[in-house]
Amino acid sequence: MSYRIEHDTMGEVQVPADKYWGAQTERSRNNFKIGAPSSMPKEIINAFAYLKKAAAFTNADAKVLPDEKRDLIAQVCDEILNGKLDDQFPLVIWQTGSGTQSNMNVNEVVSNRAHVIQGNELGKGSPFIHPNDDVNKSQSSNDTFPTAMHIAAYKMIVETTIPGVEKLRDSLQAKSEAFKDVVKIGRTHLMDATPLTLGQEFSGYTAQLNFGLKALKNTLDHLSQLALGGTAVGTGINTPKGYAVNVAKYIADFTGLPFVTAENKFEALAAHDAIVESHGALKQLAVSLMKIANDIRLLASGPRSGIGEIIIPENEPGSSIMPGKVNPTQCEALTMVAAQVIGNDVAISVGGSNGHYELNVFKPMMASNFLESARLIGEACVSFTELCASGIEPNYDGIKKHLDNSLMLVTALNPHIGYENAAKIAKKAHKENTSLRDAALSLGLLTNEQFDEWVRPEDMIGGLK
Amino acid sequence: MSYRIEHDTMGEVQVPADKYWGAQTERSRNNFKIGAPSSMPKEIINAFAYLKKAAAFTNADAKVLPDEKRDLIAQVCDEILNGKLDDQFPLVIWQTGSGTQSNMNVNEVVSNRAHVIQGNELGKGSPFIHPNDDVNKSQSSNDTFPTAMHIAAYKMIVETTIPGVEKLRDSLQAKSEAFKDVVKIGRTHLMDATPLTLGQEFSGYTAQLNFGLKALKNTLDHLSQLALGGTAVGTGINTPKGYAVNVAKYIADFTGLPFVTAENKFEALAAHDAIVESHGALKQLAVSLMKIANDIRLLASGPRSGIGEIIIPENEPGSSIMPGKVNPTQCEALTMVAAQVIGNDVAISVGGSNGHYELNVFKPMMASNFLESARLIGEACVSFTELCASGIEPNYDGIKKHLDNSLMLVTALNPHIGYENAAKIAKKAHKENTSLRDAALSLGLLTNEQFDEWVRPEDMIGGLK
Amino acid sequence: MSYRIEHDTMGEVQVPADKYWGAQTERSRNNFKIGAPSSMPKEIINAFAYLKKAAAFTNADAKVLPDEKRDLIAQVCDEILNGKLDDQFPLVIWQTGSGTQSNMNVNEVVSNRAHVIQGNELGKGSPFIHPNDDVNKSQSSNDTFPTAMHIAAYKMIVETTIPGVEKLRDSLQAKSEAFKDVVKIGRTHLMDATPLTLGQEFSGYTAQLNFGLKALKNTLDHLSQLALGGTAVGTGINTPKGYAVNVAKYIADFTGLPFVTAENKFEALAAHDAIVESHGALKQLAVSLMKIANDIRLLASGPRSGIGEIIIPENEPGSSIMPGKVNPTQCEALTMVAAQVIGNDVAISVGGSNGHYELNVFKPMMASNFLESARLIGEACVSFTELCASGIEPNYDGIKKHLDNSLMLVTALNPHIGYENAAKIAKKAHKENTSLRDAALSLGLLTNEQFDEWVRPEDMIGGLK
Amino acid sequence: MSYRIEHDTMGEVQVPADKYWGAQTERSRNNFKIGAPSSMPKEIINAFAYLKKAAAFTNADAKVLPDEKRDLIAQVCDEILNGKLDDQFPLVIWQTGSGTQSNMNVNEVVSNRAHVIQGNELGKGSPFIHPNDDVNKSQSSNDTFPTAMHIAAYKMIVETTIPGVEKLRDSLQAKSEAFKDVVKIGRTHLMDATPLTLGQEFSGYTAQLNFGLKALKNTLDHLSQLALGGTAVGTGINTPKGYAVNVAKYIADFTGLPFVTAENKFEALAAHDAIVESHGALKQLAVSLMKIANDIRLLASGPRSGIGEIIIPENEPGSSIMPGKVNPTQCEALTMVAAQVIGNDVAISVGGSNGHYELNVFKPMMASNFLESARLIGEACVSFTELCASGIEPNYDGIKKHLDNSLMLVTALNPHIGYENAAKIAKKAHKENTSLRDAALSLGLLTNEQFDEWVRPEDMIGGLK
Repeated sequence: MSYRIEHDTMGEVQVPADKYWGAQTERSRNNFKIGAPSSMPKEIINAFAYLKKAAAFTNADAKVLPDEKRDLIAQVCDEILNGKLDDQFPLVIWQTGSGTQSNMNVNEVVSNRAHVIQGNELGKGSPFIHPNDDVNKSQSSNDTFPTAMHIAAYKMIVETTIPGVEKLRDSLQAKSEAFKDVVKIGRTHLMDATPLTLGQEFSGYTAQLNFGLKALKNTLDHLSQLALGGTAVGTGINTPKGYAVNVAKYIADFTGLPFVTAENKFEALAAHDAIVESHGALKQLAVSLMKIANDIRLLASGPRSGIGEIIIPENEPGSSIMPGKVNPTQCEALTMVAAQVIGNDVAISVGGSNGHYELNVFKPMMASNFLESARLIGEACVSFTELCASGIEPNYDGIKKHLDNSLMLVTALNPHIGYENAAKIAKKAHKENTSLRDAALSLGLLTNEQFDEWVRPEDMIGGLK
Repeated sequence: MSYRIEHDTMGEVQVPADKYWGAQTERSRNNFKIGAPSSMPKEIINAFAYLKKAAAFTNADAKVLPDEKRDLIAQVCDEILNGKLDDQFPLVIWQTGSGTQSNMNVNEVVSNRAHVIQGNELGKGSPFIHPNDDVNKSQSSNDTFPTAMHIAAYKMIVETTIPGVEKLRDSLQAKSEAFKDVVKIGRTHLMDATPLTLGQEFSGYTAQLNFGLKALKNTLDHLSQLALGGTAVGTGINTPKGYAVNVAKYIADFTGLPFVTAENKFEALAAHDAIVESHGALKQLAVSLMKIANDIRLLASGPRSGIGEIIIPENEPGSSIMPGKVNPTQCEALTMVAAQVIGNDVAISVGGSNGHYELNVFKPMMASNFLESARLIGEACVSFTELCASGIEPNYDGIKKHLDNSLMLVTALNPHIGYENAAKIAKKAHKENTSLRDAALSLGLLTNEQFDEWVRPEDMIGGLK
Repeated sequence: MSYRIEHDTMGEVQVPADKYWGAQTERSRNNFKIGAPSSMPKEIINAFAYLKKAAAFTNADAKVLPDEKRDLIAQVCDEILNGKLDDQFPLVIWQTGSGTQSNMNVNEVVSNRAHVIQGNELGKGSPFIHPNDDVNKSQSSNDTFPTAMHIAAYKMIVETTIPGVEKLRDSLQAKSEAFKDVVKIGRTHLMDATPLTLGQEFSGYTAQLNFGLKALKNTLDHLSQLALGGTAVGTGINTPKGYAVNVAKYIADFTGLPFVTAENKFEALAAHDAIVESHGALKQLAVSLMKIANDIRLLASGPRSGIGEIIIPENEPGSSIMPGKVNPTQCEALTMVAAQVIGNDVAISVGGSNGHYELNVFKPMMASNFLESARLIGEACVSFTELCASGIEPNYDGIKKHLDNSLMLVTALNPHIGYENAAKIAKKAHKENTSLRDAALSLGLLTNEQFDEWVRPEDMIGGLK
Repeated sequence: MSYRIEHDTMGEVQVPADKYWGAQTERSRNNFKIGAPSSMPKEIINAFAYLKKAAAFTNADAKVLPDEKRDLIAQVCDEILNGKLDDQFPLVIWQTGSGTQSNMNVNEVVSNRAHVIQGNELGKGSPFIHPNDDVNKSQSSNDTFPTAMHIAAYKMIVETTIPGVEKLRDSLQAKSEAFKDVVKIGRTHLMDATPLTLGQEFSGYTAQLNFGLKALKNTLDHLSQLALGGTAVGTGINTPKGYAVNVAKYIADFTGLPFVTAENKFEALAAHDAIVESHGALKQLAVSLMKIANDIRLLASGPRSGIGEIIIPENEPGSSIMPGKVNPTQCEALTMVAAQVIGNDVAISVGGSNGHYELNVFKPMMASNFLESARLIGEACVSFTELCASGIEPNYDGIKKHLDNSLMLVTALNPHIGYENAAKIAKKAHKENTSLRDAALSLGLLTNEQFDEWVRPEDMIGGLK
């Protein structure tokens, strides 16, 4: 590989000749060989492109950056957003906790790429656009990185997480309506209980997701607040008048999302409670999805020795040794995602709680976990919807068998003969392996006609009058 | 100890002669010797008293319970709320996961206590009020326990957590204003950075708590929804018409809190996402409090070999071996609470995600962790405010010493001489252990007058124009 | 309430007249109104009694404490251990993170109680035994509290946790042997799979607990190392020659447990990795117990609409509304304990990771979580064994029904006709709801005799040759 | 892109024409679009190559696989291990929880690649090696995937984690020895305390890592046990005699690591407690590393307004806005890694606790988290050692300044004048901002000569006699 020489305030560094990045990026690449290369999420890089462009416009408006520089910077940022420079961001998550080196990576790439756009040779001559004095003007890593975190997180939530969860919610809602007359046995403590409809059961899942979506949307307000303008420690040193408010407007404009400047820049640099808050809602969704996917695989279990009350789509052979086996694989992917998100939440809490003074330095780790969770939930919900939920059908035979046998229909007798007498019937039927009717009649606690009138599963499901 | 005989549907049980509880409570007492006796939170028992009384009124209104029974039940519930029966609830958290046994504990105590109120002898004769058929009428453990969880959780949040956090927020806000002109060195990465005011630093803490309070309040809507009326599996079997809506109104009336019936009873029994959601906000507050308390003890560290920029109250001798030592003990209690809440959040997530079918059976564990977290945060904030935050004063000598020495004031030169030249000055001063001014002048990069004009800490703190 | 005046180095304090504690305890009681009073675990207080007595003996041997003082100190320590002074330790977990105030609580109680033992009136005259100079001689809170943590943790593990887990292990092991010939269907992905014996299934549980016990025992070595002798910062300032080694010997002698002095006192004060390590093993056990208890309740589910392959004891009525219902309540208590321990592990990790310099100040929180986990696991295992595991019986009817129906017996045909042909048989039988035999014969892939020879569940369970 | 047609038991699938994988891999690729493609860890694929080769040899020895097939399978496995087929494994973590599809991915690649090695055209004709009947012979996903997990985990620990941690341990140990005479102030509760040497301080870090290494090595025994031979449910159906033991020997031989067959195959499929156990030790190391890295950045803080007792290497410019700033970036990467590992531990606990019956279906998620943690710890320790720890030097000026000023040297007076008199001296000096000597003399509690004799920092550091 051939190299060129770049320099920064600490001296010279050899950089791969064909890469736009500069000395500081290369130092980081050499100093942090931890985990997979280029692990800094792409979404963070793109968010930087938005904010660098917005800063350039705001600086130009404030007359602290010439229009020509503004336009060059914007042009490179657009190239980044269009994916033309994807191989120019080699840094890892596990670098400095402020993300300074990824900020400089963007600054350096913009500077050098602009140099080439202007017709110059990479590494030859002094770039017209300086990485610090121009691309980073009115900025610090300390306010740009958290801004990038919020942009990337917000976008991921509204573009991937919410649509994915809503898709699943809609699918389960449709099933809930389709199954509204399918009366089945209920189960509490995993044990037979009084009946409900399959539609009611699914309505609980829908409700969970609706609550989760609401909780997630509640967090967007905090996420919409951008640190940019706080610069080094939150005071906004070296920013022109009006900068913080204006740069947030440009970002809102470029992204089409309702970003505003943060009410308090000190909080925005030193803490990442917006990330903690929003990931808390992702974790809540993970908890809900674990319950839903568990239920669905339990209900679908079998085909002959399980619960077998619903049928889920067969998507692939399930076993490399047991021929003909089909498994609830989408449930498994979804529950694995849920477990991951519950774990990520702890990593984010640990990081979020360990800021010191004017800066939290767990930024890249927090961003990475957040984006992973938000993406996985969204994509797993889409996959689960398309390949499992949307194809769920009742297994009428299984449902009927369980409903007919159940002893817990006895509950309907409580208002008529009292809890203790009803218990006698259930216990006798269970012990003697007979039907409730037989036990009831043989105990002389009610007549055949009364049994017919009182013990009707279809009447036990509409108590919510 | 003397005993009397009680019975339930499984047979006879010996119960301590002087206790109001009955057979099922005693079975649970014997069957679950796990952890400290009577560990089921008092707040849950009180919440049961509210809901049993509300159920009695609703049942009486619906003409399924005589007024005389209603009034007797209500009378005992009031005794519970007044603390007169505190020794009648011996059960532990680690019982059945539906809390059925604590529900029955309340049912049995109400039944037997009413029997005695009526002038009868405990254990003699058949109680007028039946534990299941009367006290538990139109109810199941499956809807009463989650209702009790929401009542207890909501009350704790509004009576203890929010007032405690607000008290601390107000104290820190007052400090932020009082310290608004105290210019001091900023620190990022724990390293010297550009200046800010001590008031700005404290404003970040205030902002964190405001965001946390808002997040917590956002969760109250979900918590205000009560499962009661769902009975066994969510269908409301064995409830009279209008019961669910009406019983929630009575609970709202008795507690003075805006409870309503849950939109979806299946969700309300099978999942406890409201608890997960609300505890997520408690965990966010814990994360914030960890940061705040850590900062305060770091800033107060010393007295002679630490950072020493603030002075915190001396509340007690700090060491059993080092005479005269004073420690940031309130910070320590608060950070221990924060760690506990972060852990409790995981217990709640694990419990919340493991419901099956129509019932989540991690209820007592989830309730216990929630109430502990909500209480600890509230009480620790009050303690921290009264014994630490409200007494914080700037250590002007320490602040001045650090500010005068700082090299990062060089940042103010960026717009005038560029980042790279500014870096040269800082590096030279650091290397030669001189002042910035000396280094700048000796490098010939600016004049003495320019230094005076450009490097003014008091001008570096107001960039947020 | 009447009071007397006590003093410490900060001045005078009013103390309840009838209590042995002194000024510093009372300050802590007033300064930390967080959570339930007296929440500092009793086991920690007892551990202090062991170590104070051991220190007194070691000091006397080193001629830095008169024998008369030694004996008086020892006498009060014995009273503490005998439970005679249980109401003298009012402090909470949420105090100073070094536990200094509980150390002083013990010091003060010993001093004042000795004063009374000598025939003096409490609060009158100057105690012969000084809380700092005598009871705390050659000690600091910084080494006594971690010593008490290790003593209490070690004792809880060997006295409660290990016996409890071993009891369950033995019970499951006995069941595994008793059920060694009960052939049943296996389930993977919750779906029907090839057969195994119920005994083999239970042997997996036994193996899990054996691994967990081994892991837990592996941690005892680290826990056996005592910080005592490190005093304030680990250097052992103010200790006589040989003190650290000798005091550990006395503690080993008094407790009957193999305690030794820590190899490195700096680690022993500044970190609590022994607690982190040992609780990691408790968490592993929690993970195992969650799996085991979940399996058992799934296998026992029904009675008519579940899996129904085992029968578990009926210990109490299961429902306040559904008469005759019996639930897997011991499984529920055990899984709630497991969730709690998984949460506690995070609290301990957060606390353990946040020590600074020479001291970790999350000590009481870590101790409290550890002791809770260790106790709950032990006690829940005993409860689960006695009231559930030991009474488990196969439900032969349920087992037979599932085994006879299973399609996955087809797996035995792979070596004879290949995976793809075997899959054809299974799919045909599933689709047409027929038996494997019928499907196999109708496809002409094997003869009736070959089916008899090759498809034998009892031959499918012993592959581990 | 051009395609060829592959089939499995569910029918035909279009597969990219130039890829060796087959129908089942392609189904998985289409069915699980969750997260980044090819996210299944490379280490798992390599572990499969070892075990497939070992299975082929064992099968051939048992005469159930021809030698020619054995050799072809082995040849392709070697190609996988040599990295020649890296682009043939496109599947994601978030697939079926048994990892069946990655097992089939390997089976299919081996089959098709062998077909081509034999001179055939991909997709033309029937492969000599069948993916299920040959490559997967005597195996199931259910035993191969956990076997691959253990191989990959064990290798990562011994090749990356342990060497990385040992390298850091050695570096800190060397520093501990080099700094053994550097007396400095100790700090407890972040407050000034009695002195110790910088070497002693570092010895605590060394001790932490030694304990962590020991704990990690304790877990290798469990990890060394391989599930292979259990096949579908643990019974070993369809394996030849002696298979389990022999295949483990081959794996041990091929990897050079002490693998053995698992004592209990049911545990090995249904639970992954070995992963839970071993990751618990990784989490302990994370806790230790958080403490160590935090201390080092606190001690290095400054350069002028921090603690400033050590100097760490300057590796890169620290700020994009503050010229000349240098930050403890390696500490930040290490603490971010620690937070991640603490989070991953929870994901693994959740996954580990949620197995059902004969199979845990959180396998890929658990493997992925484990390998990430083990790798990150190892690589971050190497990075931290090379770029930070090995270059640490005492800042003698800072150390001396703090030591000379400290009031806690007064502790040395306890044995001579008692705790309360010593406290008076410290308080007076603190209040009047004078030296201890001045305060002591003015109080008349000791003479100038006694002060010289008793208050000697260098005598306060060797108490551990």
